Amino acid sequence: MEATINFIGIVHSPLKSLEDCPKQENEQAPEAIIEIYPKFLDGIKNIEAGSEMILLTWFHLSDRSELVCHPRDNPSAPLRGVFSTRSSNRPNPIGMHLVKILSVEENGFIKISNLEALDQTPVIDIKPVLKYI
Amino acid sequence: MEATINFIGIVHSPLKSLEDCPKQENEQAPEAIIEIYPKFLDGIKNIEAGSEMILLTWFHLSDRSELVCHPRDNPSAPLRGVFSTRSSNRPNPIGMHLVKILSVEENGFIKISNLEALDQTPVIDIKPVLKYI
Repeated sequence: MEATINFIGIVHSPLKSLEDCPKQENEQAPEAIIEIYPKFLDGIKNIEAGSEMILLTWFHLSDRSELVCHPRDNPSAPLRGVFSTRSSNRPNPIGMHLVKILSVEENGFIKISNLEALDQTPVIDIKPVLKYI
Repeated sequence: MEATINFIGIVHSPLKSLEDCPKQENEQAPEAIIEIYPKFLDGIKNIEAGSEMILLTWFHLSDRSELVCHPRDNPSAPLRGVFSTRSSNRPNPIGMHLVKILSVEENGFIKISNLEALDQTPVIDIKPVLKYI
């Protein structure tokens, strides 16, 4: 009833504490660098500057026991099940981010726009945008 | 450099073998039932029939060593890095599906439209659609 996630890279960001992090990437989140580890470099072939992609991260500081939450940490908002929210506190704390690729270096350093994830957050996948949303 | 994914549920689908599965959910994929396990039921509060959501699954039969692939298994297509494709063969075989919720039962059985994942595929997360895509 479980599986192992292997981290493929790591986030480098000016966001050094959770208090610094905006709740969504469209709320003035800063640029960040995604470092892809050498053994996974073949996988980023064809990722091109200028494109939009979905980045999946692992919110390693999350509370994985939480099943309900107050949206946006607002205690006066009614409790909701976490699967109807984007809370990072959830059983599998996967972050899903729509990002624009700004540049891709041969050493696996990818500069992206607008990422609300903390510095040192593990990266677990990159995918094309679901075009038909 | 790794973490543990806990399965929160399982897919029940008429798709019983990989050969039966369409490559994308908009290619005549059938309806499916998502069974959420009892210990995670509080998390699906507020998931409502009629809404669209992102379902994340774990493609448990994937080849996790693959870093490049021929798109759509077409051997004449040039090899691409897996992170610029939706191939299920990738280091962390997370399936990302845009689904419509058709009904939600109190026992945690959620009927959804159009899922290309195989019967018995583990479910790992459900999230709201990224509204601003």
